[in-house]
Amino acid sequence: MAGVVVTGVERPPLAIVDGLAACGVATVHEAQGRTGLMASHMRPIYPRARIAGTAVTISAPPGDNWMVHVAIEQLREGDVLVLAPTSPCEDGYFGDLLATSAMARGCRGLIIDAGVRDVRDLTEMGFPVWSKAVFAQGTVKATLGSVNVQLVCAGALVHPGDVVIADDDGVCVVPRADAAVVLEKARAREANEEAKRARLAAGELGLDIYDMRGKLAQMGLKYV
Amino acid sequence: MAGVVVTGVERPPLAIVDGLAACGVATVHEAQGRTGLMASHMRPIYPRARIAGTAVTISAPPGDNWMVHVAIEQLREGDVLVLAPTSPCEDGYFGDLLATSAMARGCRGLIIDAGVRDVRDLTEMGFPVWSKAVFAQGTVKATLGSVNVQLVCAGALVHPGDVVIADDDGVCVVPRADAAVVLEKARAREANEEAKRARLAAGELGLDIYDMRGKLAQMGLKYV
Amino acid sequence: MAGVVVTGVERPPLAIVDGLAACGVATVHEAQGRTGLMASHMRPIYPRARIAGTAVTISAPPGDNWMVHVAIEQLREGDVLVLAPTSPCEDGYFGDLLATSAMARGCRGLIIDAGVRDVRDLTEMGFPVWSKAVFAQGTVKATLGSVNVQLVCAGALVHPGDVVIADDDGVCVVPRADAAVVLEKARAREANEEAKRARLAAGELGLDIYDMRGKLAQMGLKYV
Amino acid sequence: MAGVVVTGVERPPLAIVDGLAACGVATVHEAQGRTGLMASHMRPIYPRARIAGTAVTISAPPGDNWMVHVAIEQLREGDVLVLAPTSPCEDGYFGDLLATSAMARGCRGLIIDAGVRDVRDLTEMGFPVWSKAVFAQGTVKATLGSVNVQLVCAGALVHPGDVVIADDDGVCVVPRADAAVVLEKARAREANEEAKRARLAAGELGLDIYDMRGKLAQMGLKYV
Amino acid sequence: MAGVVVTGVERPPLAIVDGLAACGVATVHEAQGRTGLMASHMRPIYPRARIAGTAVTISAPPGDNWMVHVAIEQLREGDVLVLAPTSPCEDGYFGDLLATSAMARGCRGLIIDAGVRDVRDLTEMGFPVWSKAVFAQGTVKATLGSVNVQLVCAGALVHPGDVVIADDDGVCVVPRADAAVVLEKARAREANEEAKRARLAAGELGLDIYDMRGKLAQMGLKYV
Amino acid sequence: MAGVVVTGVERPPLAIVDGLAACGVATVHEAQGRTGLMASHMRPIYPRARIAGTAVTISAPPGDNWMVHVAIEQLREGDVLVLAPTSPCEDGYFGDLLATSAMARGCRGLIIDAGVRDVRDLTEMGFPVWSKAVFAQGTVKATLGSVNVQLVCAGALVHPGDVVIADDDGVCVVPRADAAVVLEKARAREANEEAKRARLAAGELGLDIYDMRGKLAQMGLKYV
Repeated sequence: MAGVVVTGVERPPLAIVDGLAACGVATVHEAQGRTGLMASHMRPIYPRARIAGTAVTISAPPGDNWMVHVAIEQLREGDVLVLAPTSPCEDGYFGDLLATSAMARGCRGLIIDAGVRDVRDLTEMGFPVWSKAVFAQGTVKATLGSVNVQLVCAGALVHPGDVVIADDDGVCVVPRADAAVVLEKARAREANEEAKRARLAAGELGLDIYDMRGKLAQMGLKYV
Repeated sequence: MAGVVVTGVERPPLAIVDGLAACGVATVHEAQGRTGLMASHMRPIYPRARIAGTAVTISAPPGDNWMVHVAIEQLREGDVLVLAPTSPCEDGYFGDLLATSAMARGCRGLIIDAGVRDVRDLTEMGFPVWSKAVFAQGTVKATLGSVNVQLVCAGALVHPGDVVIADDDGVCVVPRADAAVVLEKARAREANEEAKRARLAAGELGLDIYDMRGKLAQMGLKYV
Repeated sequence: MAGVVVTGVERPPLAIVDGLAACGVATVHEAQGRTGLMASHMRPIYPRARIAGTAVTISAPPGDNWMVHVAIEQLREGDVLVLAPTSPCEDGYFGDLLATSAMARGCRGLIIDAGVRDVRDLTEMGFPVWSKAVFAQGTVKATLGSVNVQLVCAGALVHPGDVVIADDDGVCVVPRADAAVVLEKARAREANEEAKRARLAAGELGLDIYDMRGKLAQMGLKYV
Repeated sequence: MAGVVVTGVERPPLAIVDGLAACGVATVHEAQGRTGLMASHMRPIYPRARIAGTAVTISAPPGDNWMVHVAIEQLREGDVLVLAPTSPCEDGYFGDLLATSAMARGCRGLIIDAGVRDVRDLTEMGFPVWSKAVFAQGTVKATLGSVNVQLVCAGALVHPGDVVIADDDGVCVVPRADAAVVLEKARAREANEEAKRARLAAGELGLDIYDMRGKLAQMGLKYV
Repeated sequence: MAGVVVTGVERPPLAIVDGLAACGVATVHEAQGRTGLMASHMRPIYPRARIAGTAVTISAPPGDNWMVHVAIEQLREGDVLVLAPTSPCEDGYFGDLLATSAMARGCRGLIIDAGVRDVRDLTEMGFPVWSKAVFAQGTVKATLGSVNVQLVCAGALVHPGDVVIADDDGVCVVPRADAAVVLEKARAREANEEAKRARLAAGELGLDIYDMRGKLAQMGLKYV
Repeated sequence: MAGVVVTGVERPPLAIVDGLAACGVATVHEAQGRTGLMASHMRPIYPRARIAGTAVTISAPPGDNWMVHVAIEQLREGDVLVLAPTSPCEDGYFGDLLATSAMARGCRGLIIDAGVRDVRDLTEMGFPVWSKAVFAQGTVKATLGSVNVQLVCAGALVHPGDVVIADDDGVCVVPRADAAVVLEKARAREANEEAKRARLAAGELGLDIYDMRGKLAQMGLKYV
């Protein structure tokens, strides 16, 4: 089943993608009904990166990064690479040379359910990575995988062209077709939160703002 | 058994609490006989925070943060929130809105054996959190838990009003009744260490300062 | 079998050691045929440290740091301490006092497949540590271990006098006898990478630079 | 997005399902190109169970088993329940009462990326379960999930009506539309293996049967 | 704080203890409000053991089983040993010799948040153990711990004299003072389940028996 | 460095190997000074197997079982295969066909710090395996590894020709040159334990048999 590179993947407009980046992972995750989140083991290699991009997906055998080279050719401005190994692996599929190449093609970052290396260089280059591990272990180029196929990465289903948002809170995937609607909802959510933040900062309680006291009492909450 | 909020919890004086913060986790842990330490998976969301506070405890169902709202009403100046889920969970119970509310009530930070989100905002706000995970996963408000009850958080027993010290080394709990004595011992330990640090820095060996050579030889240590 | 301190360990010249530090973990690991890497759970307590040193090894019982004191006497300028517990343990064997002592003896850092504490102080002192955990848990001084014996640390075989390189990517061990040759190969690799980096930055593809298209097609890669 | 029960799910014929069960997980996984396997943490509660069934899927909040009751109504003869929590959880969603109910509806077993309890009773009843944990922790019935929606369970994508094969080797999912073809390939593979098994049992080497010596030598394998 | 052996611990009557054993872990856990459960990593060394006993607790340093000998002297007919190391450890504190000794004193089993060895012998002897690991690693006798003090074992608070129930589902702790009441509730629960089991076995649905349809509809569950 | 098959490995006499098997892992581990034990994650695929054999070692890339075929040719009567992947992996390198082949060459079992599959068949064939995982995931045959080289498997150093003992307690390695002496010590230990077992079974306490009361009192143990 491996050995396929899908070309001509559709992407949503970058204006939508950038709008989702500005909202951040937690807000986008809420806005689309609490779906699309990758597992919490996906951590950034340096703090305060916040990106969104369109997914170029890579399904790669364990310990084999050949398909990363194939995927880089498929990159367009605004893309992110999303790599899921075909079985659990933490080898360092990706380092500063591949990042140099990917950046030259407009890539905004890497999401990898495996390992990454040269993280000091990547940090200096400003190429953000969310990964399962930092591990210098080298990989081979011996077996085919696939590029731009649907895959499961860190528990989340990703299709090529989906929007991937990543920040200090982790990584969230928005299906391409939903991107515009989710952005709208995310912005509405942000606006709504702004008002609440001011009230909470002023000392008002969530118990009152959200009118929870009655329901809590009815369910039997006792103060002793 | 859930569904209880205990009010009127006694706290030790903040002068003692602040004294313990200044000593730090490792020293306090030693000073009270190497007890009270939470498990090593409790990590700070940003480096160099060092706090102590009096515990307002939250026992919450997995994936349900309703009781956080209830707990915030119980906060007093100098408190920290301590949340333990009733079964293992890494959902993001807490984010920047709740932190805004908690800070407005005098809360110094959050200790949570589960997940936290909005960590970039929390970092900018200077609201420190020690958690098991960073995870954007949203929670519901559907089931009661309890506030200010005794609980086990990350392997440590915590009573409401206990002093919780947290820094880059982790989190340590001091029973309320022991706080004054532990502070005294911790300060004595610090004073004692100061003298040793100077001797060690000058090149003297622990083998000599602590007079270990005889005992090592007697136990059979061989140099070859 | 425990209870031995081997003295008179040979070390390679510090010029070679320092050369390896400059190359970094990923390059050295590749240069010696992808061997010698410790497991990915060995993480630095602060970012951007990069060291190499000659190993003074410590085999210690779980929760017992007595042998660290013994090992510090064996340190020479340019050494690093490498501690492996005899069974899995994450206690805090090492803190700022021991670091003060080790630094006074010329030690460049600590590699420990267990826990470390006082990490804020260690960071301020500039004493780097790669560890399995940060944990304040105290240890005893009751049972003998050994110093400067061969051991397995985080999956890597280490002999006293071997070169240990550590940076943000992890920890790699180079056998003493191979150090000069590995350095030469690592430098050759760096030189070679420089040229490639320029071409990749200019937008050339790895597919072309490494001439991969023919082999990929021959193995059946399909573009659809 | 939760709160949906899809009815009228199509299933493949039970003859195909039963054929796949007879082939077992490893063979089916190979036959469909090494895809569809759930993560290795999915273990059977008792040895030697081997089943296949058509998936009735359950997406459930952490610690909330309400949707299991809803799903049981959707069961037909030959189905298996497949439950994935919306965030990581190991609570005991399922025990002997639910198994009694599910068996009465023709259910062949449960695949759950969470916990199960009453395993002694389930073993005696002959109701097989593959789970992430055995854990008595009780759950609530407070929040909606969904039934018969597409989900990711233990890293594998599952659609309602897909065939799920489970035995001592784990759990594998075959898309409904592929079931007949995969069965054919699996049987071909079994036939092919039979001949090889006899030759290997007689002492012939895989090196010779698969004609590997030339390729190994060409790649540089050295005997020393 | 270590170095204490508490004698004269009160135990509840064995009739109550044995009654709780007959109910099993899942039922008892429910009967006392879903509290007292140890973490799911506590697994039996062989299937189908089901015991209850009164706790003789052991707080032991990592890798040091000296206190087990001390605790055995404190055993009475109907007790179980409950060992929690003072920091995470999986060494084999306990094997067939200690089991021989414990059985001779009336001990019914061991609950240990660490390792056990000689499990083949223990199985043949019929001495059940619930542990975090099976590990042959030997331990020393060098440092004091305590016996019959309050401790946290695998996340559960245990006092000496509490009732510990253990079976294939894990381990649950019932406070001594609550044992009689919990037994009563557990038996009521069992009686209640019997009737439901018959109805479910006859094909009736939980949706109807528990009258859930209305509430599900009201919360918005949709059938499509 | 990969790509080597060492032939002509020396093995100790099978009489010694069989003697060690009879003693079992825990006793042998103690007899050689508590060294040589593999990590506790190495678990048998079925209970009650107890073997010893001489190691034919396999260093294999992640997800590539080509070298297993190469290794099988090197097997002699009484050997066991010991496989360590070059980076962490849990793929199913080995199944019933390879076991058939290995058994035909006199192999007694497999020790693998990765995955195994077809465990039901292996159980029926009586071919024991100690592994890190049971996982049906298939592997490729694309990249060279080495056979009969020194390696680290699950934390233990193994040389070809070393004796590997495995039972329900795990796996222990005895260096070839030490095998005879370790066997002698293991038998002495067994004899010594026999007498103690009888005394303990009769109700005598370890506190008295090992004369511990004085030392405990001297260290400050208090009965309260």
